[in-house]
Amino acid sequence: MPIARKISDFMERSSWIRRMFEEGRHLKAEYGDENVFDFSLGNPSAEPPPEFTEALIEVAHDTSPCRHVYMPNPGFPETRHAIADYVSREQGVTLSGDNVMMTCGAAGALNIIFKTLLNPGEEVILLTPYFAEYYFYVDNSGGVPVLVPTAEDFSLDVAAIEEALNQKTRAILVNSPNNPSGRVYSESNLKELVMLLDRKSREYGRPIYLIADEPYRKIVYDDVSVPAIFPLYQNSLIATSFSKSLSLAGERIGYIAAHPGLEGMNCIMDGFILCIRILGFVNAPAIMQRVIARVTDAVSNVEEYKRKRDLLCDGLGARGYQFHKPEGAFYLFPRTFIDDDIAFVRELQGQNILTVPGSGFGTPGYFRISYCVADETITRAMEGFGRVAEKYL
Amino acid sequence: MPIARKISDFMERSSWIRRMFEEGRHLKAEYGDENVFDFSLGNPSAEPPPEFTEALIEVAHDTSPCRHVYMPNPGFPETRHAIADYVSREQGVTLSGDNVMMTCGAAGALNIIFKTLLNPGEEVILLTPYFAEYYFYVDNSGGVPVLVPTAEDFSLDVAAIEEALNQKTRAILVNSPNNPSGRVYSESNLKELVMLLDRKSREYGRPIYLIADEPYRKIVYDDVSVPAIFPLYQNSLIATSFSKSLSLAGERIGYIAAHPGLEGMNCIMDGFILCIRILGFVNAPAIMQRVIARVTDAVSNVEEYKRKRDLLCDGLGARGYQFHKPEGAFYLFPRTFIDDDIAFVRELQGQNILTVPGSGFGTPGYFRISYCVADETITRAMEGFGRVAEKYL
Repeated sequence: MPIARKISDFMERSSWIRRMFEEGRHLKAEYGDENVFDFSLGNPSAEPPPEFTEALIEVAHDTSPCRHVYMPNPGFPETRHAIADYVSREQGVTLSGDNVMMTCGAAGALNIIFKTLLNPGEEVILLTPYFAEYYFYVDNSGGVPVLVPTAEDFSLDVAAIEEALNQKTRAILVNSPNNPSGRVYSESNLKELVMLLDRKSREYGRPIYLIADEPYRKIVYDDVSVPAIFPLYQNSLIATSFSKSLSLAGERIGYIAAHPGLEGMNCIMDGFILCIRILGFVNAPAIMQRVIARVTDAVSNVEEYKRKRDLLCDGLGARGYQFHKPEGAFYLFPRTFIDDDIAFVRELQGQNILTVPGSGFGTPGYFRISYCVADETITRAMEGFGRVAEKYL
Repeated sequence: MPIARKISDFMERSSWIRRMFEEGRHLKAEYGDENVFDFSLGNPSAEPPPEFTEALIEVAHDTSPCRHVYMPNPGFPETRHAIADYVSREQGVTLSGDNVMMTCGAAGALNIIFKTLLNPGEEVILLTPYFAEYYFYVDNSGGVPVLVPTAEDFSLDVAAIEEALNQKTRAILVNSPNNPSGRVYSESNLKELVMLLDRKSREYGRPIYLIADEPYRKIVYDDVSVPAIFPLYQNSLIATSFSKSLSLAGERIGYIAAHPGLEGMNCIMDGFILCIRILGFVNAPAIMQRVIARVTDAVSNVEEYKRKRDLLCDGLGARGYQFHKPEGAFYLFPRTFIDDDIAFVRELQGQNILTVPGSGFGTPGYFRISYCVADETITRAMEGFGRVAEKYL
């Protein structure tokens, strides 16, 4: 075998995803792109807001010296300062630039955090349904991902989390608004969680870190807001990006913000600095650091996503699909009518509708619809969704 | 301990670097930046060429849809095509876009390659003096770095490499022009190496991959050119970046180019695609992919670096320092007058001159001078270099 066994195993385990992707390609080749309804990708459809484009043009015209070369690994001081200022307002806890490290997206941020914190065999709690790449991020650093299901309504099941905690638990990762469920955890739900983490940290004699992956924080609907975690729990870290809020997923710009009261702060930040280097990121892209510093508060048009959510929920609800109406992000995670979610998704494929089975998120019996697509894709797919539903109702 | 033991050990082992860095900061605070001669960093001093800036402005003004979001993990097809076209000309071997993956710099490229290829305990040959981050890149994927010294004149010591090869050897990494020695390996020297690799690959029944890290390829002097490795060896990969040739070190843009005849090509490329995702890079920054596609052949002003090299070599030569005159890159790696290179570098520090001991590159008894600095820094530091030399001559 030309590649490592583990990588080959990972590819094997997810080979059905590739097969479905290939089948989708065949459908598009056969019927034309416009007649295949592709809800499989979480790629932001809203354009970046005008202030982003203005800032980018301004930065591109700047020809001051050394503007594209290495800066200190954690990022330009002025960018870290701007982010600290933003996060201080968002969280209601005052950060300094020293509490912030700029990263290549949230994926980069999480890999740096796990590499810094995890000894071999130490555990990280991941809550299903979940963004399955988390599994690999933990594994990359020799950690052990421990999957704990959320409740029926996708809220935190704190009793289930308590059962999973032990001396080896190093961290728990929460993702709210959630991919794929669209759930935003309520403040009372989070309070239950941090009470548990506080109690268990004391019992075990070392902190269990709470890591919040929040790239969808600004994409919320109907007066929902995402509770701040910093006022609730000192040993917490935010790992996030501008990928979704500014539709910059391809630019790889994000950050880690550490609670200023984090236990072992200096040592952990030094660890992050070592790890951003040795993992090969080195630093977050320079030009996007400069742009982001100017538009920390900007956001793409969330109303667009809300309109699409409502269009999709109304359409599927009328056709008998069961789901939790998303409070944020741009995914819907309905139940499949049959237990075998992969078979169900294939039935949708028979209608030229591409979605992802819940198995890909650790939760069989569901499927994910990414609704960051043209309105027309949603409305035109309804007939096919309806035909599949009719078989089971 | 709040961080992983291994990360803490890595930090401990390189703590003298941090101490020297701190001492340098104190010197700057005490004497003023302009009176401290900082030769410690390999940060390109030449500005990007005008065609880069023009391309960047053009791309920044483009407001076509979806321009900053995810593209296929290996990069924009048009960028991969442009790189394939460039590498085909550079190497004299015809590549297609399928042989290319865009990466977050060469550091990202190397981490993806090692993650894809290495089973736990498999070995990668690294040639000292070497860029010490290579050690971590191999270790990140559970591989074992095996350090093999180059010859007295920093050319490849093929007999020494042969002694280090065994059934567990998966790859050898060569870096030419070399950081820190400035050495460019000759074609005959490389031919000796690939004959050995061919013979040993046959003997072991699987290929030993040759990985060329070539970010300094375009920074060469006096009619030197860097021999192409693709015509010499089929199982070879180029991992490189525009960090040095276009002074874009902070933008994190580079690529992997695979020899079109690489054994297991499809499987390896699929492995790269999985690994760029799971390592958290996801893709190379979108905007720089678009810019680079327009300026594949451009290069910063190499004459600037040549002038600095000559200024430095003439000055140090006249003061009794012994070194191999660099054929490329922007580093000089002279002998220290005493065995203890860390003590020697401290003596230079006593003259407000900041350099890096050879120990940091796996080769005690030498020190590295990065000459990507202002001409004035070189000329004004000569007095101090002279005073230290006088003690030993």
